[in-house]
Amino acid sequence: MNLDKQTRALVDHLAAASDLDSAASVLHWDQQTYMPPEGVAARAEALATLSRLSHGITASDETARLLDAAGAPEPGSDSEAVVRVARREHERATKLPSRLVSEISRATTLAEPAWRRARADHDFGSLVPHLQKILDLQRETAEHLGYKDHPYDALLDRYEPGATKSRLEPMFEELKRGTTEMVRAVSAAAEDRTAPLRGAFDEARQEAFGKSIASAFGYDWGRGRQDRAPHPFCINFGGPGDVRITTRFDPDRLSPALFATLHEAGHALYEQGVDPAYSRTPLSGGVSLGIHESQSRLWENVVGRSRPFWAHFYPRLQDAFPDAFGGTSAEDFYRAINAASPSEIRVEADELTYNLHVVLRFELEVALIEGSLAVPDLPGAWNAKMQEHLGITPKDDARGVLQDDHWAIGFFGYFPTYTLGNVLSVQLFEAALKEHPGIPSEMERGEFATLLAWLRENVHRHGKKHDPDTLVQNATGRPPDTTPYLRYLREKFGELYGF
Amino acid sequence: MNLDKQTRALVDHLAAASDLDSAASVLHWDQQTYMPPEGVAARAEALATLSRLSHGITASDETARLLDAAGAPEPGSDSEAVVRVARREHERATKLPSRLVSEISRATTLAEPAWRRARADHDFGSLVPHLQKILDLQRETAEHLGYKDHPYDALLDRYEPGATKSRLEPMFEELKRGTTEMVRAVSAAAEDRTAPLRGAFDEARQEAFGKSIASAFGYDWGRGRQDRAPHPFCINFGGPGDVRITTRFDPDRLSPALFATLHEAGHALYEQGVDPAYSRTPLSGGVSLGIHESQSRLWENVVGRSRPFWAHFYPRLQDAFPDAFGGTSAEDFYRAINAASPSEIRVEADELTYNLHVVLRFELEVALIEGSLAVPDLPGAWNAKMQEHLGITPKDDARGVLQDDHWAIGFFGYFPTYTLGNVLSVQLFEAALKEHPGIPSEMERGEFATLLAWLRENVHRHGKKHDPDTLVQNATGRPPDTTPYLRYLREKFGELYGF
Repeated sequence: MNLDKQTRALVDHLAAASDLDSAASVLHWDQQTYMPPEGVAARAEALATLSRLSHGITASDETARLLDAAGAPEPGSDSEAVVRVARREHERATKLPSRLVSEISRATTLAEPAWRRARADHDFGSLVPHLQKILDLQRETAEHLGYKDHPYDALLDRYEPGATKSRLEPMFEELKRGTTEMVRAVSAAAEDRTAPLRGAFDEARQEAFGKSIASAFGYDWGRGRQDRAPHPFCINFGGPGDVRITTRFDPDRLSPALFATLHEAGHALYEQGVDPAYSRTPLSGGVSLGIHESQSRLWENVVGRSRPFWAHFYPRLQDAFPDAFGGTSAEDFYRAINAASPSEIRVEADELTYNLHVVLRFELEVALIEGSLAVPDLPGAWNAKMQEHLGITPKDDARGVLQDDHWAIGFFGYFPTYTLGNVLSVQLFEAALKEHPGIPSEMERGEFATLLAWLRENVHRHGKKHDPDTLVQNATGRPPDTTPYLRYLREKFGELYGF
Repeated sequence: MNLDKQTRALVDHLAAASDLDSAASVLHWDQQTYMPPEGVAARAEALATLSRLSHGITASDETARLLDAAGAPEPGSDSEAVVRVARREHERATKLPSRLVSEISRATTLAEPAWRRARADHDFGSLVPHLQKILDLQRETAEHLGYKDHPYDALLDRYEPGATKSRLEPMFEELKRGTTEMVRAVSAAAEDRTAPLRGAFDEARQEAFGKSIASAFGYDWGRGRQDRAPHPFCINFGGPGDVRITTRFDPDRLSPALFATLHEAGHALYEQGVDPAYSRTPLSGGVSLGIHESQSRLWENVVGRSRPFWAHFYPRLQDAFPDAFGGTSAEDFYRAINAASPSEIRVEADELTYNLHVVLRFELEVALIEGSLAVPDLPGAWNAKMQEHLGITPKDDARGVLQDDHWAIGFFGYFPTYTLGNVLSVQLFEAALKEHPGIPSEMERGEFATLLAWLRENVHRHGKKHDPDTLVQNATGRPPDTTPYLRYLREKFGELYGF
């Protein structure tokens, strides 16, 4: 990394904040994998202090002074990117009072286990005070951060720099419009094609098979590991040298752990691919959640639910689980993993209906932030939206409004990035394919080096150097666009469901 | 906890340092249990930053100002204890120039791998320049910290507040004098009684059996867990709510994992028993390494190698490992786990000879600090002392002077706390027994509630409130005393070896 002297001074000053954030990531990872239940109180305090001190460095007068001294470096240089990102973070940090930052950290650390209990007990009521507190803090956050049109924009921008409610709405409309007919067609089919995915799946074999695919993708186990967590995630500790994934296993169903592993491995490939020179600088890590999700969905869906991919891996899956798959044809398996129908759980939704789950959450969280929906009314509103968008009603709140932890941990404005990721996953894959038409035949041999190299070159290595719009423009020659994605869905599901 | 207003302000100010230390503990734990190999570079940076920031708070002018404001609270009060401990930590933090702290960190970071190589290559010579450097830095540290009689006292005090060379010497003399005859007697027996402990021990069964004992002791799994690590340890994350242990398994030998689990559970019971009100204050955690070791050795040896204990657990051990123990009598098993003979390696030594290993190290490190022994002469001095105290000569330096990493990582003054712990383990156990003569019959039923309750009341709950001497005086009515320990050894090994 080539930095001018002033920018180097800025980077050196901010490195301590980066170290504190890395430490906080380790504490978060531990909390979700191994921490004993009674550890939560001390953990909340430790995380609150780490976040307060990191925030203090980012927001400090010294940072302001160094940003002034760095001025406006040459456009396109590393220095310019560092200053741009550091300035955005400094401005965001100075807008939030440190009291608010600690309060958010403490409230969410307490709400996360409360959400777990509420989901286990099917008791939304017990979560209401936590959610109310967090919603109040989110609203306060939006007011401090500031926005042009809508408070939601301030929250969204934290995850997707440049995104706004008014830019998302047309995208969601296109997706709703573009998929309504298709969803109706698969609903009409009303057949369950997923039977092959149910059975008895030994956990150790599930784990070994998932890991073998992550390895084939190019996930480096010397710089990572996989653990169990109730909600699968990917996390990195201060650079590409330690990027971990988690999953959860269902002994009766193959899909949850398998596709979670592919998904999280996709995130991890991105983080492992960032230029190591960016470690402990503002350019470290993926640029936005939308771009991140484009990577996870690309590997999970565009690759991991494709015919070429399973041409290689299905015989291996049959070897691993002969009882379950000995009598199932490759075609029936392919139809099973791509079975589409309106369902309750977002993370288990098929590619076709997935975005409708996101639209629902987007609409509800906008209403919560606006104040047109009250927290205690959330379960009812959830179920009404499920009817509206998907034509079903969840069996209970655990399979409804309590299924995701995002709101309990303060992630308002996060959900839309999933759909942005879906849209971009196909746009990026098509760009790679255009340059390397041999990618599908490589996939048929269980090889992914060309695809990974293209992503490394065009997406991963840049870290936060380019803003999302620039990155997508550079990589694909176009701004984000739903056209390739809708075409992909139509071709794939048209063929599968005969429309 | 009842604190006056000024002391409360001091505690509030120092809480952030405590949080940073808790976070560092999580990072250390992870580094030794789960961290992938390539995570080490970022981890080193994160830990360096956490320790720098924590040290900065402890040493800060604001801490000095708050200590001044707190003045001298009422003797015996929580406030008085807080101010005493906080002042000691502040003074220690300000006495060492930061240049020296970095030099020690750098020197030990280089010496630790050098020690590993030297041990692997049986090449003490390659370690000499490292040890010389570290010894010089330890001497300089002693001068900065200050002492009354001997520079060694300054180093010792870091681990055992109040301990001095001149107080340790009579204790070590008593132990040498008291055990010489006994060691001669077991050496004369010259028989190997340990055969029953070798065999094939399934790891999962070892783990389950060890955990069942820790549970019976009263280790609370809701506030802890056990993981695997190359070197067993106990660690807590900011209070009694999260106190973890680790162990390592040897598939061919039962003892290493089993007794490591009992030992670390003993440390953990102490930490889990500290008054939760002390969390995030200077009074949190065990008061000294000697008192800590008294707890681990009490549960490992005084309880865990006793007849009453195995009266309950041996049938259960036979159930867990019928192949290994089906044909071994309880008496032969008891003789195996208490087999005594002079041996080369401290961490594998029996109760009778263990302290002679410590005496040897104490005498050598005092001589090094005084300058009466030169670093290159250490192997010769080591072997001479082994002959003098244990009547054997190590096969080579790897099994001699190079076996421990303590000196390479700058832990001068640490070894004596092991023996202090042994001595106090019996003194405390006898005090508990005097008050509750039913403890051995409870142990025969696998029950430990009365013993644990006595330790909680007299040792654990106090955290750092009382200095070690006061704690021992209050708990046993006497200062530290080798008499009970020597009587215990004589009775136990006299009966086992017929002297």
